[in-house]
Formats: sequence, structure tokens, C-alpha cells
Amino acid sequence: MSNAISCAAWRLYVIVDQAAAGGRDPAWIAAQAIRGGADVVQLRDKAGSTRDVVARAQAVLQVARDARVPLIINDRVDVAAAVGADGVHLGQDDLPVSAARRILGPDRLIGKSTHSLEQALDADREAVDYLAVGPLYPTPTKPDYPPVGVALIHQVKGRVRRPLVVIGGVEQATLADVLRAGASCVAVVRAVCAADDPEAAARELKRALTQFVPSPSCAGL
Amino acid sequence: MSNAISCAAWRLYVIVDQAAAGGRDPAWIAAQAIRGGADVVQLRDKAGSTRDVVARAQAVLQVARDARVPLIINDRVDVAAAVGADGVHLGQDDLPVSAARRILGPDRLIGKSTHSLEQALDADREAVDYLAVGPLYPTPTKPDYPPVGVALIHQVKGRVRRPLVVIGGVEQATLADVLRAGASCVAVVRAVCAADDPEAAARELKRALTQFVPSPSCAGL
Repeated sequence: MSNAISCAAWRLYVIVDQAAAGGRDPAWIAAQAIRGGADVVQLRDKAGSTRDVVARAQAVLQVARDARVPLIINDRVDVAAAVGADGVHLGQDDLPVSAARRILGPDRLIGKSTHSLEQALDADREAVDYLAVGPLYPTPTKPDYPPVGVALIHQVKGRVRRPLVVIGGVEQATLADVLRAGASCVAVVRAVCAADDPEAAARELKRALTQFVPSPSCAGL
Repeated sequence: MSNAISCAAWRLYVIVDQAAAGGRDPAWIAAQAIRGGADVVQLRDKAGSTRDVVARAQAVLQVARDARVPLIINDRVDVAAAVGADGVHLGQDDLPVSAARRILGPDRLIGKSTHSLEQALDADREAVDYLAVGPLYPTPTKPDYPPVGVALIHQVKGRVRRPLVVIGGVEQATLADVLRAGASCVAVVRAVCAADDPEAAARELKRALTQFVPSPSCAGL
């Protein structure tokens, strides 16, 4: 998709999950994550009313805009359109990509979660801007999905055109394995969102990512 | 709003609520309701994944299109846009009307739930096609809202430009009171959705509505 935002240069993708934030303000978490080096922020909020999600999205968007970091909204294409976010992230159980693209137009980002090589290849044929692959490790955030393992990164990377974001239980301890498997952009939920010091947690991850992946060439590009 | 569909002529507005349908297929309930005389159908589905809600909306839309009855989607503006439904119904906790109108364009219907004279007057100033007023009576479908009573119908009717749909615990036994208070279009959930014979239940309500409100002049117009 034509878009001024280049997903290929992303290294650290922080998902601010209302449930994982332990009652802390999502806008505060987002600000901390961005100060720590997040290249992109996603707001995931499955529990609130639409009006609540819109209010939280507006607050996070203000933080993201001030820092010139893109904000992606999980699932809710209507919320993304309503607040003017930079894009939407769709799971396999969310709106079809084609419908989201019709609503959002050509200039917003659309990411898609995939859990197998087949799903990644399918998504790569759609009007998406990046693919997420995971969960790599067991994670309480996605209890219904069996971990796919880091080997899938290498398999997918050679077969798709879109930039890859890898996700699912990645933390400081597992980061080296993930990067050796070919990832250049890592998405985290709990590793930042549930950290006592989200800014420090993001900074540590970003440092490791930047050391391992020096050049701005995201997987798949 | 300019719209080929005239809400003012509606008498019976049936809400197909996934939770109230007792496991029965929403498309079947919608078909029964339409055969019984529903002038408009709304799909309300708060529990399913977006993908599930889209699938159910598509199935109900097929039924509604075949019968040339408009289909309204509750809350989810993205789902309404994705399936090409005739409109959306917004609660006080849903997307703002202005945002929904931007996403849906000028030709789709937007309805808004209101629970007081003040909310009705506010909604009447927005880009809505009809107002819902209620809940008139205590109803398990809206446990958090105190009943407003039928007196509000008369108060609102004289002060707003939009057609009114009254809602909330209305059933055969209370219909006469509701109509005497000035309503001409009644929305029901359980009275049809949870009935053993939804078609017969809709037919009985429609007959009473047509007897009490012979001319096609909806409240407020």
C-alpha cells in the first residue's frame, strides 16, 4: 500500500493492552514506551464500551502524534476511522482486510495477524502493510493459540513481500533467538505494558534490537 | 438526512438480539419477524468476534434484502459498513454520531438511543434519522437503565423533529398504554426474539400497532 509511514524501518512495536496494563493509564504507558524507543504503538482494548475505547484511543493518539509515532488500533476499524488513527491491526477473527481497506481508504496502515505459513501467504496477497507472525512462545495474552516457534520466522520471511512483525511471549531473555531466526521488528505486550518501568523495559528491548539489526531493512523487504 | 428509507412509516421495529434468541439462528428469527410484519430489523450482537458478527450480519442482510426490509446494525459502524447494511443504531456509549456519519456517508440510516428528554433533544440536533426513547419499562435487556416511563414519549414527541421509536419492555400487554402516550413505532427485543413463535408474536404486535396508529405519520413528523 502507498503510505508515508514505512513499516520496514520499525524495530520495536509496543502493544498497549488495556487488560495487561494493570489499571494504569494507556496514554501513560504509550508515552513511556515511546520515550523508551517504541517505533509504533498499538492500542488493544477488548473490554471497554465503544465510547470508552474511543476516549482512550484519542488520549493515546495525542501522545503518539506529539512524538510522531504511528498509532494502530486493534480490531476496531470504526474506532480507528473515528479518531483518525494511523491504521488498524486485524486478527483472523476480525473484519476482512478488503472491508477494512474500503472503510479506511488507501492511506491508513493495515496489519494482519497470522499463525502459520499458510495464513502469512494468504495475508501477503491482501491489501496489508505488514504481517504479524506468532505467537512465537506461550503467552497468557493469547491462550487459545499454540506457539508457532521461531522457525516459522525464517520460513515466512523468504516467502512474503510485506514487512514482518514477530510477536508472542518475546522478552529480553528470548530476544536473541528471535533475532537469529531473522526477525527485525518485534511486537511486545506484557514485556513493556506490565513492566514496573515501561520506559526502561522498552529501552532495553530497543537497544538489543538495534544492536542485532543495525540496518533499516525489515524482514521481507 | 436524505434517505430513500422513510423511518416515519415504521410501526414495528424488531431487534434480533443474539443473547435473547436462545441459541436460535438470527437469520431465522429475522425471517420470522419480517413475515409477521416487522418494518425494520436491527441486529444486536455484543458477544461474538467481529468476524462472527459480520457472518451473522451477512446472513440476516440476505433475508432482509429479499423482503425489502431495512437492516440496522447495533453499535458496530465498521460491521455495518463492511456488510453494506442500511444503517447503524448507536447507544450513548457507542461511537459519536458525527464519526459514524463520516464513515457511513449521507445515505445510511443512523438511529440513536436516548434515555431522557435532554438526551433526545441533543440527539435531535445531530445527523440522525430517528431517535429511540426508553427503556419505557424495566427490561432484562437493559438492566443498567432505570425505566423512563411512558410519559416521556409525550414530552419528547412535541419537541423533536425526528421520528421516534419507543423501546424497553414493550409487549402485547403494555402496548395500548404506549400508543396512548403518543408512540407510533415500537421496538421490541424479547417480545419477538424470545417468543416460541416469533412470527405470530410479531403479527400480533403489528396488528395492534396498525389498529391504534392507522395513518403513516410517525411521532415527531
